[in-house]
Amino acid sequence: MTRKVLLLPGDGIGPEISAQAARLLQACQSAGLDIEVEEALVGGAAYDTFGDPLPEQTLDKAKAADAILLGAVGGPKWDKLEDLAKRPEKGLLGLRKHLGLFGNLRPAMLYPQLASASSLKPELVAGLDIMIVRELTGGIYFGQPRGIEERNGERVGFNTYVYSESEIERIGRVAFEMAQKRGKKLCSVDKANVLEVTILWREVMERLAPEYPDVELSHMYVDNAAMQLVRAPKQFDVVVTGNMFGDILSDAAAMLTGSIGMLPSASLNESGQGMYEPCHGSAPDIAGRNMANPLAMMLSVAMMLRYSLGETAMAERIEAAVGSVLDDGLRTADIASEGMQTVTTTAMGDAVLEAF
Amino acid sequence: MTRKVLLLPGDGIGPEISAQAARLLQACQSAGLDIEVEEALVGGAAYDTFGDPLPEQTLDKAKAADAILLGAVGGPKWDKLEDLAKRPEKGLLGLRKHLGLFGNLRPAMLYPQLASASSLKPELVAGLDIMIVRELTGGIYFGQPRGIEERNGERVGFNTYVYSESEIERIGRVAFEMAQKRGKKLCSVDKANVLEVTILWREVMERLAPEYPDVELSHMYVDNAAMQLVRAPKQFDVVVTGNMFGDILSDAAAMLTGSIGMLPSASLNESGQGMYEPCHGSAPDIAGRNMANPLAMMLSVAMMLRYSLGETAMAERIEAAVGSVLDDGLRTADIASEGMQTVTTTAMGDAVLEAF
Ligand SMILES: CC(C)[C@H](C(=O)O)[C@@H](O)C(=O)O
Ligand SMILES: CC(C)[C@H](C(=O)O)[C@@H](O)C(=O)O
Repeated sequence: MTRKVLLLPGDGIGPEISAQAARLLQACQSAGLDIEVEEALVGGAAYDTFGDPLPEQTLDKAKAADAILLGAVGGPKWDKLEDLAKRPEKGLLGLRKHLGLFGNLRPAMLYPQLASASSLKPELVAGLDIMIVRELTGGIYFGQPRGIEERNGERVGFNTYVYSESEIERIGRVAFEMAQKRGKKLCSVDKANVLEVTILWREVMERLAPEYPDVELSHMYVDNAAMQLVRAPKQFDVVVTGNMFGDILSDAAAMLTGSIGMLPSASLNESGQGMYEPCHGSAPDIAGRNMANPLAMMLSVAMMLRYSLGETAMAERIEAAVGSVLDDGLRTADIASEGMQTVTTTAMGDAVLEAF
Repeated sequence: MTRKVLLLPGDGIGPEISAQAARLLQACQSAGLDIEVEEALVGGAAYDTFGDPLPEQTLDKAKAADAILLGAVGGPKWDKLEDLAKRPEKGLLGLRKHLGLFGNLRPAMLYPQLASASSLKPELVAGLDIMIVRELTGGIYFGQPRGIEERNGERVGFNTYVYSESEIERIGRVAFEMAQKRGKKLCSVDKANVLEVTILWREVMERLAPEYPDVELSHMYVDNAAMQLVRAPKQFDVVVTGNMFGDILSDAAAMLTGSIGMLPSASLNESGQGMYEPCHGSAPDIAGRNMANPLAMMLSVAMMLRYSLGETAMAERIEAAVGSVLDDGLRTADIASEGMQTVTTTAMGDAVLEAF
C-alpha cells in the first residue's frame, strides 16, 4: 500500500533543508520505497499566504498522511504579531495538538566525527547518547485557563500547568518502553518539591515502574537535571518529562553535543503516526544563503522510516550515508572545523545522496 | 545601632557550613562590626522538633532581623512526607514569601584558581561573570489555584503560572539597576511564543527600558537561553527571569563554573532586608562528614555585609581571604584537583579566618 508523506518546509532555513529531504525521499522511492509525497504550507509561510499559520487544507493533508516531515517555523518577521493565535509557532502547536502527537522523542547523541564541536571537555561527552522523551500535547503549553486580563486595576498574565493521570501514564509508557530498548535506565524529571502537578507526575511514574521491572526508574528535580546535564551528561539514558521542562532540557542536551544541526526528532501519536523535524529552529539569520546544515532534516527522514513506516533497513542506509560524508570530512558552516571541507547546503545534500 | 543577624543552619550540610559562618561573624564582631547573632530552626530540622518547617518563633525572629543567613534545607528523610506543606522546602518558600524577598541575585562567576573545575572548555568560561536576577515570591511557585483533584473520574494535578504588571516591574527595576552597575547588558528570558504570562513579562521589560537608556535590553526564549548558557555563556551579563525559569537557569549557570560550592546568593525585599544562602543544596550524602565546602556560606556572609549591612570594606576582606586560601592551594573535596591540598570543612574555615 502506498503510504503518504507530507512535507511542510515552513520558514527560515526550512525550505532549503526540506529541498534536500525531498531529494532524499525521491532516492528512497527509486530504491523501492512505496510512498507518495505532498507539500503544504505551515507557520509564517502559511500566515503570509492564507492569514493562518495552520490553514485547514494543511491540517487535512496532515491528518491524511502516514507521516509528516517539518522543516522549521518562526522568525522575527512574525514576532510582532499581536495575536498569539496567528504566530507561526501556533501552526506547529496546532499540528501537535490536532494530531495528538503526545510523544516527543529527542535524541541527543554525539557523532564521534564531531566530538570537538562540543563546548564540554571531550571526556565528558564522548559516546554521549541520551533520549529525552517529552510530553508534547499537554502541560502548560495547552492548559486552560490562560490569558492576560485586568485584576485590581492592573493587568495580570496567567497560564495553567495541568496534567491528568492518563496523560502522564501514556507518556510514561512510551518512556519505559524506550528505556527497555536502550540502556534500561529512566530518569523522570519533575519539581515535586514545589509543584502539585508534578507530585502527581512522580506518583504515576512510580505506579508504572513495577510493570517494567527491567528498567531502573529514578527521579530528579528539574533544576538539578539542568545542572547534571552540564556536569556529567553521560549519567543519563532515557529522560522523561513534561512539555515545558522537556523544551528546556532537550535543547540544553542537544547543545551539549555542539552539533544541534545534526539532531532529528520524532513526535508520535497513539496510532504510530508521526511528525519528524530537526531539533534546531528556523535560523532566520542564515536563511536563503545555502549554508544551513541539512543533515538533521535528512536524519529526520531516517527517523520517519524507522518509527512510522517500519523501514528500518532504509533508515540505516541513510544514517550510514550521513556517517560516511562526515568521515569524508564534509562539514556545513555550523560544524566546520580546521582541516575539514566547509560545504553548502546543496553540496551536503549531493554528498549524502551519492553515499546513499 | 546594633543590627540583628539570624542564622538558620537548616538540614544536611547546613549546620556544618553554618558553624564556619558563625565563626566568621564572630571575627567580624572582633573587627568592630556591631551585630547581634541569633540562631533558629528551619526546614526538616524544625519539622523534626516542632512539626512545622517554619515555626512561628523562627518567622518572628526572621522578621525582626536585618539579615538572615541560611544554610540549606531538605533531604531524603522528609521527601516522603505526604503533606507538601510540611516539607522542609516549605520553610524556605515561607520565609521568601512572608518576608517579601522577591529579588533573588544569583551570581555565577568563575574563580580563576578553579578554572579547571568547569566541565566546559577553559576558553569558554575563563572570566565568566553572570548575574541571574530571579523573581522569587511569585510565578508558578505561589500561583493559585493549585492542587490535585478528581475530574472526570481521574486525578488531575494543576498549578498556576501568574504574574501581575507590578510584580514584573519590581523585579525588572532590580535587574536594570544591577545591569547599570555591571556590564550594562540585560537579557530577559521568557517563553513569549507560547505563554501569555510571559508576553506580559516581555511587554513590561520593554516599557521599562527607556528609563534605563544606558542598558541594552534583549529577550531570549528560555529553551534558547538554556542552549546559549551551554554554548557560549560569556555572552551574558545580567539575566532577568521568573521564579521557575530562574530556578533552572541559575542552577545550570552555577554548574558551568564547576564549583557551585563557591557560589553565594542573596534574596532581597523592598526595604533592603535580605536572606543570604549558598547556591548549593543540603547535600545529604556528605552531611556530617566534615567534608562540605563552607566557602559559599562564608561568601554569603560577605554578600550580606555588602547588600544588607552596607559594610563593603568588610565584605571585601572576606572575599580577599577566600581568594588567598585558594591561592594557597587549599581545596575541599568538591573542588579538589591534582597538586592541591584537600582539606576538611573546619580546616577550610580555619584558613579563611586566619587570612581574614
Ligand atoms: C517553536 C516552539 C513553540 C517549540 C516549543 O516550545 O515546543 C520549539 O521550541 C520546540 O521545542 O519544538
Ligand atoms: C529547595 C527549592 C524549593 C528551591 C527552589 O526551587 O527555589 C531551590 O531549588 C532554590 O533554587 O533555592
